[in-house]
Amino acid sequence: MLFEKIGIIDENFDFKKDMYVGVKDDRICYIGTQKPEENYGRVYDGTRKVLIPGLVNAHTHSPMTLLRGYSENLPLDRWLNEKVFPFEDKLNCDRAYYGTMLSVAEMLSSGTTAFSDMYFFQDGVIKAVKESKAKTNFCRSISSFTDGEFLKESRVIETLDAIKNYHNTENGRIRIDWSLHSEYTNMLWMIEAFGDYTKDKGFITHIHMSETKSEHENCKKKYGKTPAKLFYDSKILDSKCLFAHCVWIEDSDIELLKEKNASIVTCPASNLKLGSGVCDSNKILNSGINLALGTDSASSNNGLDMLREMYLAAILPKGINNAPDIVSPKDVLKMATVNGAVAQGRYDCGIIKENYKADLAVISLDSPSLYPDFDVINNIVYSAEKSDVILTMVDGEVLYENGEFKTVDVEKIGSECNKIVNEVVREISL
Amino acid sequence: MLFEKIGIIDENFDFKKDMYVGVKDDRICYIGTQKPEENYGRVYDGTRKVLIPGLVNAHTHSPMTLLRGYSENLPLDRWLNEKVFPFEDKLNCDRAYYGTMLSVAEMLSSGTTAFSDMYFFQDGVIKAVKESKAKTNFCRSISSFTDGEFLKESRVIETLDAIKNYHNTENGRIRIDWSLHSEYTNMLWMIEAFGDYTKDKGFITHIHMSETKSEHENCKKKYGKTPAKLFYDSKILDSKCLFAHCVWIEDSDIELLKEKNASIVTCPASNLKLGSGVCDSNKILNSGINLALGTDSASSNNGLDMLREMYLAAILPKGINNAPDIVSPKDVLKMATVNGAVAQGRYDCGIIKENYKADLAVISLDSPSLYPDFDVINNIVYSAEKSDVILTMVDGEVLYENGEFKTVDVEKIGSECNKIVNEVVREISL
Repeated sequence: MLFEKIGIIDENFDFKKDMYVGVKDDRICYIGTQKPEENYGRVYDGTRKVLIPGLVNAHTHSPMTLLRGYSENLPLDRWLNEKVFPFEDKLNCDRAYYGTMLSVAEMLSSGTTAFSDMYFFQDGVIKAVKESKAKTNFCRSISSFTDGEFLKESRVIETLDAIKNYHNTENGRIRIDWSLHSEYTNMLWMIEAFGDYTKDKGFITHIHMSETKSEHENCKKKYGKTPAKLFYDSKILDSKCLFAHCVWIEDSDIELLKEKNASIVTCPASNLKLGSGVCDSNKILNSGINLALGTDSASSNNGLDMLREMYLAAILPKGINNAPDIVSPKDVLKMATVNGAVAQGRYDCGIIKENYKADLAVISLDSPSLYPDFDVINNIVYSAEKSDVILTMVDGEVLYENGEFKTVDVEKIGSECNKIVNEVVREISL
Repeated sequence: MLFEKIGIIDENFDFKKDMYVGVKDDRICYIGTQKPEENYGRVYDGTRKVLIPGLVNAHTHSPMTLLRGYSENLPLDRWLNEKVFPFEDKLNCDRAYYGTMLSVAEMLSSGTTAFSDMYFFQDGVIKAVKESKAKTNFCRSISSFTDGEFLKESRVIETLDAIKNYHNTENGRIRIDWSLHSEYTNMLWMIEAFGDYTKDKGFITHIHMSETKSEHENCKKKYGKTPAKLFYDSKILDSKCLFAHCVWIEDSDIELLKEKNASIVTCPASNLKLGSGVCDSNKILNSGINLALGTDSASSNNGLDMLREMYLAAILPKGINNAPDIVSPKDVLKMATVNGAVAQGRYDCGIIKENYKADLAVISLDSPSLYPDFDVINNIVYSAEKSDVILTMVDGEVLYENGEFKTVDVEKIGSECNKIVNEVVREISL
């Protein structure tokens, strides 16, 4: 495919107009101001369009889209105990498949090409990921509430199964990460065993950390140190880690994460909606830590729209710090693309550059909300919305274009999700 | 027009499905569960669609859409002095007309049927409002930096002209309000003369108030009282007032505004983006004051999308107050509709009710982001985006449907806006 005379976000995250971008197989093979001699097949007219790196949703729980609108306006403990846990108790692989398909559709329609997914029912989730051709780092979150032995824990066994069956499959689109659900949902023996086991295996570890104030403070009371220090001391940080939320981390935590080259994923919408607080993303960015962006699940967001998340990530720190000149649109665009790819360990994704994977989205500038053209990057971050996304491509294959999904039948999946929700609600009430 | 078997937000802001809503001329004439016998003309299939009251953007500056993306990531004083003021200095009625047309298009495409607009170049703005058939409360903001005489001030004369020429025209779609720009842009003589003049005229007064901390604190230093108290003492509150922002108001201010039946318009996105802070909308709602919602201008937002603003209004107070159970979706839906209409003095708008004006928007539930259907009001507030708006009707006339604008040629207006921006930037540099 050849994108002809299209605006692009270049490898330095500057805007360039009237460019030619050639895609062959799963890679970007040509970027230039002149039409290439080589034939790239379909020619795509780039008039008033911008090619951006596909967005990377670095923290979500895709089957939880089934719970959208179901558990709302409740304090976190009631949200979890009265609503989320009883609902999840009725899920299975088949139901998780439908939830994931719905999530992938929403993500593709808003320009997201890859996501880091923490959940269970892996065979259902991965089936959906394969079918929809999405790019996913999946992890089976591990929690432990009783004593046990690491390699005999069912969640550990499931992770090892996932690695055996799915890691680096589908042209590398599917990867498996390790995951400790969080400090507060694990016993110390598991945290230490997890670190011992994973520290030299070369996998990524995905963890919820310091999401709520009480979680952070309780850890300090229990262990005399913060969750970050606990994970550091347990060698968990010796693997490449991805810490979601980090609303309540302290300066000393930032130093530890920086030292160990960990990534942080901020989820501003979910943290607001659940009343957890506001992550100091400006401080994290300034520390040099790789900061990515995620939506968290559609049960706490309530969408999976990375453009809306980018908007929030751009304006929220300014308002909270009374500082309109922090966290630039370019910072946010990187958070939502290349930083997410780095957090996933995908070093050939997230940038429009020759030999990088062709994970791309096209934004049309035709909407009234994207005029005038004074600054296209400002417009993309502050003004674009998912309706402006008119094409999404993963590994060089168009999966969404002009409202049409190539791999998901939204009407069928949506109505199946409605059926599942009704069944689950009935089952809960029995 | 007859909406057939459509979901609606009823007059109590509850969701009802499979309803019939008949519109004749500019009014809602029938609401029922049965098909009416009367012929309402076009029949609209409501399958998987929801009729909501048209959204009311209760505080904006529509010509400033010309500045979208132009003045970004700067502290407020530099934003204003280095960018906004020099740009506005080059505007005129013709240029304001194009900016307003672009704004109206964006608002219609996101379900907004009415807006309260504070600006100048009234003949240009009103020309656009007439042509686009939008519903607008326009006010010419008054500021004063030297001594003078109320009725001889050019801005007062312009307001009187606007009232004479435009108030209650176009089937009442256009109304003129009075406007004091703010405390900090006016001398005391003007504030007092304004109150004296307007107190018994029966108009609405639209004012920026306590937007930034420094503005609020400086007023207290200068006058020994808050802006709200100053306006109260100057009899300005004896008219029905609409105060935009109110980020820094105090408990005693809330009491004064409540006593005088004033409205507040919160603009959460703009307040964040300009680093002004966060309005305590939960406290205002609990006080019983009529709280409406606005986008402010596209120069500080950077959009005019009330759905995005609703989302922010719903999640922001929860995060700031660490309280996920405050400011319900229903509260927010009222803020964005009927409360805005009340703030505009339009008591027959903002609710889906017989004999009310047919200012309506249709939201399609077909997008993957709006499945499952567990709670439609939660989904509208937390998950719907402007692409889900498929029809917008003002005074019974369809002005936007499925991406098509009936009264605005977006391509032409957009390209004209681009031309204007280029001209202005060139003129500034001369």
